[in-house]
Amino acid sequence: MAERVETTARLETFSDGVFAIAATLLILDVNVRAGTSGQALGHELLRIWPSYAAYAVSFLTIGIMWVNHHTTLGLMARVDRAFLFINIFLLMMIAFVPFPTRVVAQHFTGAGDTAAALLYGATFTVTAVFYSLFWRYAIAGRRLLRDDADPSVVGRISRSYRPGPYIYLGATLVAFASPQVSDILFGVIALFYAAENVLVRQR
Amino acid sequence: MAERVETTARLETFSDGVFAIAATLLILDVNVRAGTSGQALGHELLRIWPSYAAYAVSFLTIGIMWVNHHTTLGLMARVDRAFLFINIFLLMMIAFVPFPTRVVAQHFTGAGDTAAALLYGATFTVTAVFYSLFWRYAIAGRRLLRDDADPSVVGRISRSYRPGPYIYLGATLVAFASPQVSDILFGVIALFYAAENVLVRQR
Amino acid sequence: MAERVETTARLETFSDGVFAIAATLLILDVNVRAGTSGQALGHELLRIWPSYAAYAVSFLTIGIMWVNHHTTLGLMARVDRAFLFINIFLLMMIAFVPFPTRVVAQHFTGAGDTAAALLYGATFTVTAVFYSLFWRYAIAGRRLLRDDADPSVVGRISRSYRPGPYIYLGATLVAFASPQVSDILFGVIALFYAAENVLVRQR
Amino acid sequence: MAERVETTARLETFSDGVFAIAATLLILDVNVRAGTSGQALGHELLRIWPSYAAYAVSFLTIGIMWVNHHTTLGLMARVDRAFLFINIFLLMMIAFVPFPTRVVAQHFTGAGDTAAALLYGATFTVTAVFYSLFWRYAIAGRRLLRDDADPSVVGRISRSYRPGPYIYLGATLVAFASPQVSDILFGVIALFYAAENVLVRQR
Repeated sequence: MAERVETTARLETFSDGVFAIAATLLILDVNVRAGTSGQALGHELLRIWPSYAAYAVSFLTIGIMWVNHHTTLGLMARVDRAFLFINIFLLMMIAFVPFPTRVVAQHFTGAGDTAAALLYGATFTVTAVFYSLFWRYAIAGRRLLRDDADPSVVGRISRSYRPGPYIYLGATLVAFASPQVSDILFGVIALFYAAENVLVRQR
Repeated sequence: MAERVETTARLETFSDGVFAIAATLLILDVNVRAGTSGQALGHELLRIWPSYAAYAVSFLTIGIMWVNHHTTLGLMARVDRAFLFINIFLLMMIAFVPFPTRVVAQHFTGAGDTAAALLYGATFTVTAVFYSLFWRYAIAGRRLLRDDADPSVVGRISRSYRPGPYIYLGATLVAFASPQVSDILFGVIALFYAAENVLVRQR
Repeated sequence: MAERVETTARLETFSDGVFAIAATLLILDVNVRAGTSGQALGHELLRIWPSYAAYAVSFLTIGIMWVNHHTTLGLMARVDRAFLFINIFLLMMIAFVPFPTRVVAQHFTGAGDTAAALLYGATFTVTAVFYSLFWRYAIAGRRLLRDDADPSVVGRISRSYRPGPYIYLGATLVAFASPQVSDILFGVIALFYAAENVLVRQR
Repeated sequence: MAERVETTARLETFSDGVFAIAATLLILDVNVRAGTSGQALGHELLRIWPSYAAYAVSFLTIGIMWVNHHTTLGLMARVDRAFLFINIFLLMMIAFVPFPTRVVAQHFTGAGDTAAALLYGATFTVTAVFYSLFWRYAIAGRRLLRDDADPSVVGRISRSYRPGPYIYLGATLVAFASPQVSDILFGVIALFYAAENVLVRQR
């Protein structure tokens, strides 16, 4: 039927919007305690360091996912409506990130730390699963790929994505033993992905 | 008169912005109760499930409206100033969605559930009415359509949009009998539209 | 000197972002009173009608300014750095709108209504002044205009913009006599501009 | 290896989004004190002038950084993955600005003023350092530059950026002597950069 084949352009605009907004909204949850007296401000600004750390880890993770979204869409020639909806579910997870970030920043230690770390980890794990779906749907039978998309590049990306959900799931489960270690692992993973992207993929 | 014929490009940028922001702002209303002690965090994270559900339904509904906006604009060659204003009224409704979402998440059950469900449903009903206007204005006499826009595609879209406002109105009115059923219906409708888009329109 | 002549494309992306975000953020200030019991929700949803009205008037006013920004940029072939900064000051005013909107919604009647109406009106008056600057800078000596920009269209736009700041200033000063009439005037002006755009300029 | 050479287009969309959102979110922190009675509203609207000033300075500073980002990207033909990540760290700092803006607006005078001014200044200093990195990475060996990028323009930009981090660092350190003078300096710097851009670079 004569349904117009959609290009990726407007999908990118909408997706970039959600990625950019989700990342930028994170700052609304970095806050000094209401009623902090001026006297105590310096101390309070140091005390809330988990908020800064959570902000940085979540911003970087969203940024990495944006870079990957960017790279993979660059290999596609078209989108179909099923793909639009897979993308909407993926964006729904990305846009959800500010909530667990806020929770983990407020419950990094003390009672509630395990619940917070599980929420944080589960969010990224589910996001990684949707991201896998997004990629696999696009490449199955080269459904959405450009004619000139190099099979070896596609294969390499597939291999590099495969462990993603498992790594996130593993880091999440660590929260049952130590929620702080689990939280830190997500920071390490983000830095590792950033470094890998910068150092290895440049070849 | 020599008024420049506008293309749809910048309308898309602005509209995509509003759709993306309205959807992403929804997360600001997913919150644990202020003063939740750490001890109770796990329980509180489960207790607020209506917030997650309302987030998902509203995000998906905005996403579906974005896909449709996307699809229909793809059939248009130009916009005029009247259409720009119809679009602004449509976006005004889309951007309104976070408010009823917040209200329905906090009043899913208990006193106030009927008022919350009516507000939620009325918002989507009015949005659907504006969306019908948007489409009908564009196609009347093929006013804004591209020369190559297939009449059978246009007709099929018109037929598929026609029941929209009535379905939403019906689901809204159900709130007088059972607000919870009404709320759930909006989730079902969203999933149905998503599935229909993915499964049926692919042909 | 070999400074690259800038096109209007990226200016539009950034500006569209600010317009879209400022308009969409307005909804964050539509709120039921904290601690509203479920019982009273229906009544509370009606009581806050000034919030809905302020939301609609501000959204529509931002939308109209966006349409005009859109139309005038469409007549320009290039931007220079001075223009970029005039645009930033204009956007600074647009992005300010959610604050007076919030204030006027909470102080539509009762003590404080005059201060609120003056703040609301002054914001739009200053915005209109910046908008005049924006347009006059662009057309002085046809500085930024496209070669094919029709002088009669440019002249007509200039004439239609000239009364803008005075109309807004007048509506603002009415607040000293009646703040409610002043507030309502901004709604009337917005509807008038929308209608004029739709009905008159279509010729 | 057959990695696609990326153009700057989508980087601009995402970056413009973050710049626009960070600037527009600033307004959420301009607020009258909760519980301000209507009677006192006029006085309260004047009392919070540091909020307006902080809003204007931060908005203008973000705007200037956007103009520079815009100008420098216009000289680039391509981006690589390392550059994408440098850009993400830069955007992470831009998106952070609303937090120190909020703090400095609430602690402009009184106890806590030094801590607030240091936080504000340190944020812009680190941002300027990342911005230097961003530019130096791009021009090293003309890595990302367009073939026709004029070396004298590139050199002039490099010279004009060199003092940036030092100026910001100096203004920050002034806070130990007088936090108010430090805060005001950031306003002066922003106005100076804006004026320099408008008056000098037009040649």
